[in-house]
Amino acid sequence: MNARLTRTDAEGIATVTLASPGTLNALSTAMLQDLAATFGRIAADDSVRVVILAAEGKAFSAGHDLKEMQSYRSAPDGGRAQFQALFDRCSALMQQISALSQPVIARVQGVAAAAGCQLACTCDLIVASETTRFGVNGINLGLFCSTPAVALSRRLAPGAAFELLTTGDFLSAPRAHALGVVNRLSPPDRLAEDTRALAAQIAAKDPAAIRLGKRAFQAQLGLPLDQAYRVAGEASVENALRPDTAAGIAAFLDRR
Amino acid sequence: MNARLTRTDAEGIATVTLASPGTLNALSTAMLQDLAATFGRIAADDSVRVVILAAEGKAFSAGHDLKEMQSYRSAPDGGRAQFQALFDRCSALMQQISALSQPVIARVQGVAAAAGCQLACTCDLIVASETTRFGVNGINLGLFCSTPAVALSRRLAPGAAFELLTTGDFLSAPRAHALGVVNRLSPPDRLAEDTRALAAQIAAKDPAAIRLGKRAFQAQLGLPLDQAYRVAGEASVENALRPDTAAGIAAFLDRR
Amino acid sequence: MNARLTRTDAEGIATVTLASPGTLNALSTAMLQDLAATFGRIAADDSVRVVILAAEGKAFSAGHDLKEMQSYRSAPDGGRAQFQALFDRCSALMQQISALSQPVIARVQGVAAAAGCQLACTCDLIVASETTRFGVNGINLGLFCSTPAVALSRRLAPGAAFELLTTGDFLSAPRAHALGVVNRLSPPDRLAEDTRALAAQIAAKDPAAIRLGKRAFQAQLGLPLDQAYRVAGEASVENALRPDTAAGIAAFLDRR
Repeated sequence: MNARLTRTDAEGIATVTLASPGTLNALSTAMLQDLAATFGRIAADDSVRVVILAAEGKAFSAGHDLKEMQSYRSAPDGGRAQFQALFDRCSALMQQISALSQPVIARVQGVAAAAGCQLACTCDLIVASETTRFGVNGINLGLFCSTPAVALSRRLAPGAAFELLTTGDFLSAPRAHALGVVNRLSPPDRLAEDTRALAAQIAAKDPAAIRLGKRAFQAQLGLPLDQAYRVAGEASVENALRPDTAAGIAAFLDRR
Repeated sequence: MNARLTRTDAEGIATVTLASPGTLNALSTAMLQDLAATFGRIAADDSVRVVILAAEGKAFSAGHDLKEMQSYRSAPDGGRAQFQALFDRCSALMQQISALSQPVIARVQGVAAAAGCQLACTCDLIVASETTRFGVNGINLGLFCSTPAVALSRRLAPGAAFELLTTGDFLSAPRAHALGVVNRLSPPDRLAEDTRALAAQIAAKDPAAIRLGKRAFQAQLGLPLDQAYRVAGEASVENALRPDTAAGIAAFLDRR
Repeated sequence: MNARLTRTDAEGIATVTLASPGTLNALSTAMLQDLAATFGRIAADDSVRVVILAAEGKAFSAGHDLKEMQSYRSAPDGGRAQFQALFDRCSALMQQISALSQPVIARVQGVAAAAGCQLACTCDLIVASETTRFGVNGINLGLFCSTPAVALSRRLAPGAAFELLTTGDFLSAPRAHALGVVNRLSPPDRLAEDTRALAAQIAAKDPAAIRLGKRAFQAQLGLPLDQAYRVAGEASVENALRPDTAAGIAAFLDRR
């Protein structure tokens, strides 16, 4: 049996692993479907506090499945309907990850390219091996990475994002860290361990507060200041009223 | 007499100082009221050109007054009305600082945590001691810093902000400077002097132009490009028409 | 003959050069008109794949023509109509550059100040000599750089932008690079060569994909996530359906 995607759960951490190293973890329709189904199940699973999105092999993901895309062209409409369905499916997955209550950490090694770069940049946090390279290099084949640009330009200064999009050049993980894109850099042989430690640190927090907080964080991004404060204020009131939060503050005051 | 807040004015610079080091300058309702009243008076005071928001003791501010928050819980509604009032009051203060015509410089040492980090990030400029640590670590008590996230995510790359919010980790002042959050770093023993010098530099500019400029700057942030240019263009016309500006340009042309 | 602006085309790259070094390439009404006309012609010229915006002399541009601005004041309305027309014209040029289908690279040396800094920050990419200084220092004359702030605050962390606007201080090119504002730094004697190499790299890509991609990139900036993905998805479908893109992907798959 060759699963395209595996999921292993331990201690409140679901590790979802792209398991198609032979295709450089191409985001085929089947892979996108599996990811959407897996994240759908995780959304409904209260035992999951944090998600690690990992990948087997030498690349995190090289992006869309180009062979599949070429096969669309034989349709009577030249593939239009299938291209539209592919990009819709891919964009829906990205928004599903942003909307997921649990934080998602991308664990990235090798190359994250095109839609693979988009997938990493859509995750809430990125831990990257020091040798990782990020690219939105579809332009090298004549396909500008317009949908990856949505995720990238929300994480990286627009001028720096546009350079990658038009040159096809890669961004090194250390430079991505210096620009605030990558949260933590790891030596290649410590990537799994460091990612796990970050996930465990977050999993140790009050999961209801984390869920409520992630939703408020996503909702307020990009809103005008007064609306952002209204959304965030409502979340803060609900959070403050929780019995576990009352107990957490009480314990802190006792220690002090 | 123990003032929670002091204000001293000199040479167009109002220095507002959180003066409750015993509570790590907790942002109690009383402190928030004092801050709102003080900024309200400053807004109407043409002699003030620049504001420094400083703090006594080893921390800039540790955030909300947790004891006060716990006391709310004995109310018949479990504290809902008072929590709502607290977050409303706090959010209103932050927007009052953004809307204040005069630039506000946070002078930050030690720790700026939770709503204390929010307060620093809301100020227009931040001068920080090299050893300062910024945190939005309410999650450690089960209270996700949703309202501080509004200020933080408008000043720091969203992915970097989310890491602090979910891990409770602190951001060092040097890293905050590298990411463009902190404007100037100072050795601890030069913090007051360096902040004063920055304030004096701004206070030496045409105060009407600074006020008009800050309002336009705040108004255009986040607007679509055409609307942003309309707002900024109107400000530029009004500014250019001022007699002092005419004189300033004339003097420059004469020197040249 | 003294052209204010020159244009030379070679290998799909149009180099537009501010050629008024005696005025530090002041953005007079005449210069703004020439720029708008030149960019208008380039928009309609399919032979141009990339634009370099360069400048002769020791400064990229020192901003508006102050002598011209002072001359407005003798009008019956004190210059209001002419100031309004000037800022309208300047803001329209900036939006014209953002809306231009071809990428525009600013090649910056010396000083880029006030509207000159705005012009550089409006270009899609910036290559700067290591000794370049960026400033929005109109405040030194009593004229807050409100319209330059629109471009600057979309390229640089708002707190860092506001510091430049209120202090009149300059941002060094290396710091601008560290903050993601400048794409590439060059030794002064290699600036022209390095900019040319970047332009050639982009000019070698499929020009239709680049045009379509730049439009989508600009359109999605600042939109809510779902709308951004809709805009970018439509661009991706149109791009994927192009015969040249089909051929580009096919060639890649063959090589692999």
